[in-house]
Amino acid sequence: MDTSASTIAAATAPNGINGTVNGHTHKEKVTIVGSGNWGSAIASIAAKNTLRHSKQFDPEVIMWIFEEDYEGKPLSQVINETHENPRYLPGIHLGDNVIAQPNMEEALKDATALIFVLPHQFLRGVLKQLKGKVNENARAVSLIKGVDVQGHMIKTFPALISEELGISCSSLSGANIANEVAQEKFSESTLGVPAPEGFTDDVNHLPDAMLWKPLFDTKTFRINVVPDVEGVGLCGALKNIVAVAAGFVDGLDWGSNAKAAIMRIGMNEVKDFCLEYFPTTQAATFLEESCGIADIITSSLGGRNRQVAEAMVKRGKTFHELEPEMLKGQKLQGPQTALDVHEFLLTKGTKRPNGYPLFEAVWKICYEDAKPETLIDNL
Amino acid sequence: MDTSASTIAAATAPNGINGTVNGHTHKEKVTIVGSGNWGSAIASIAAKNTLRHSKQFDPEVIMWIFEEDYEGKPLSQVINETHENPRYLPGIHLGDNVIAQPNMEEALKDATALIFVLPHQFLRGVLKQLKGKVNENARAVSLIKGVDVQGHMIKTFPALISEELGISCSSLSGANIANEVAQEKFSESTLGVPAPEGFTDDVNHLPDAMLWKPLFDTKTFRINVVPDVEGVGLCGALKNIVAVAAGFVDGLDWGSNAKAAIMRIGMNEVKDFCLEYFPTTQAATFLEESCGIADIITSSLGGRNRQVAEAMVKRGKTFHELEPEMLKGQKLQGPQTALDVHEFLLTKGTKRPNGYPLFEAVWKICYEDAKPETLIDNL
Repeated sequence: MDTSASTIAAATAPNGINGTVNGHTHKEKVTIVGSGNWGSAIASIAAKNTLRHSKQFDPEVIMWIFEEDYEGKPLSQVINETHENPRYLPGIHLGDNVIAQPNMEEALKDATALIFVLPHQFLRGVLKQLKGKVNENARAVSLIKGVDVQGHMIKTFPALISEELGISCSSLSGANIANEVAQEKFSESTLGVPAPEGFTDDVNHLPDAMLWKPLFDTKTFRINVVPDVEGVGLCGALKNIVAVAAGFVDGLDWGSNAKAAIMRIGMNEVKDFCLEYFPTTQAATFLEESCGIADIITSSLGGRNRQVAEAMVKRGKTFHELEPEMLKGQKLQGPQTALDVHEFLLTKGTKRPNGYPLFEAVWKICYEDAKPETLIDNL
Repeated sequence: MDTSASTIAAATAPNGINGTVNGHTHKEKVTIVGSGNWGSAIASIAAKNTLRHSKQFDPEVIMWIFEEDYEGKPLSQVINETHENPRYLPGIHLGDNVIAQPNMEEALKDATALIFVLPHQFLRGVLKQLKGKVNENARAVSLIKGVDVQGHMIKTFPALISEELGISCSSLSGANIANEVAQEKFSESTLGVPAPEGFTDDVNHLPDAMLWKPLFDTKTFRINVVPDVEGVGLCGALKNIVAVAAGFVDGLDWGSNAKAAIMRIGMNEVKDFCLEYFPTTQAATFLEESCGIADIITSSLGGRNRQVAEAMVKRGKTFHELEPEMLKGQKLQGPQTALDVHEFLLTKGTKRPNGYPLFEAVWKICYEDAKPETLIDNL
């Protein structure tokens, strides 16, 4: 990681973007919007890096928290006393410089680096609250998995954040099981940052790369930068459809040739879908990066979508029936995303010669009672 | 699959290439050179397809067999009586039209479609025997995993076959565990065929695609054609280095983020290595096809290279020590390929900015007693 280059650039970058405001050097102030499993893991990383890059960052990392009770105390108080989030990331020291803050206005005061990492269904409400209250020189990054669907429109969360708050927004996604990242096991993640059209220089020198890469990159959490915000944002949603398909293969006992084939076919549908409907995305983001193929691999091997889909086949139940017992009331994302994509394709059509047969088969098995064996019929 | 197109084209293609010889329609005669696990599985598929495409193929599929004893009888006799290969693919009916033939000259007589599927160490000897005895209008396909290394030269087997016999040679490789293919579980494979430079039409219409695709493609064994013989041939060798690296990750208990990262990084090194040194290869072969990413996935999840590498870490032994007990005297391909690549890179150098750090780390851990933890040091 090119730390020295980032630090130098932060001190010399133009007004209001990075480094100086009204001639005074300022440091980036980090606020994390969200405090769940992944939010807490990322807080522990950011807290190390604000100390490590102390010329660029204010050491304090504020973590906005939706207050709840933990063994008779407010969770924020427990976190600030123990420097641990015992509810969502037990056993991991977050860093003494992580401050839990349940008041959103307080949490956002002076923040210039906003990390959005909350369940997607809460995002629109939070953005409404934040509108007009965010520093004009602030920048954001979205770690939220999923896409925003309104009617037949599909929008990525970084695009939504950027639109609603009027600030630049990047995205971070990868083969990242939060607990493994927090335990400092070797992981990678992909950072998608905005780039001017036709940009061909070193992406690490893009302004938003020089903010976020030093904040996230560590020896065991390697950040690779790509100039493709949308692509990184889309991967995290669409991979869940592939994971459901992989779960069907497991349920059918079709073996590892078939499993690998489904991952490969799924990856190509994810790539082609994004290239067809999101013209700024790049094939390499899906084929070569952690947010693409690597995340498809982990989600298709472990993960809840795979697990519930396997149970659908083996136990002959619908995912609606399995959700309450297997996910404690949480909703499975894969089937919903397959439905969103199906309805989107109905209105948009496709130029892909064979359509998106894996996406469509997953939708049909989940919502139209098609037999799991039909998964490969149109491939 | 476009059967009718293949059949029509076979009947109308130019002299000596396909379909007619001296004005007489002839049928392709298939001989399989090799009769092990994969050879027998592919025989069972070819035997179905010669019957299905009876206008294009002579129904008989000859399987050359290196004679051995099976429970007191010659194995070839057992196969011809039972239509099963009880030594290498027990429980699978090969087809009544598969004929085992231990005499190589007999096996090759009149053959126009030669399938090479034998252990790589026997290939040069067999080619020497065949030289000058093969029909001039014959074509070949290599299913052999590995590469031919002479000194510091790396050559693919299709290139070697083509050179030695003076005939066109394609290659077939994919995420193909032989038993699953033989049991008609869903699988895919990639067929690399020769193409004229700058060819942009439908690859399924290339002459060698029109021979091999109808012979291999079935409802459960899907063949995708790419105009990249070398790329398909190289994948099957280089993926074993990645599988060794994946095994080290398992041995170190680094978890699934790390495992997915190593597969991703490995795939990119395979792709970059081939693009750098084999100029006819194409990135998509590695990134998008079954022979590339899908085979890397299966080999890194199952497979002997992964398994022995895991044991190296967990039991603190070298692969030389583990080979006899874990592989019954067979040789592990991954370490050898890592050594071949290392020596090749020593003489050739590389323009890749960071070199091939995963390939090099695997070599160093296998041959220079480097600690497995160093796997990621230079990534």
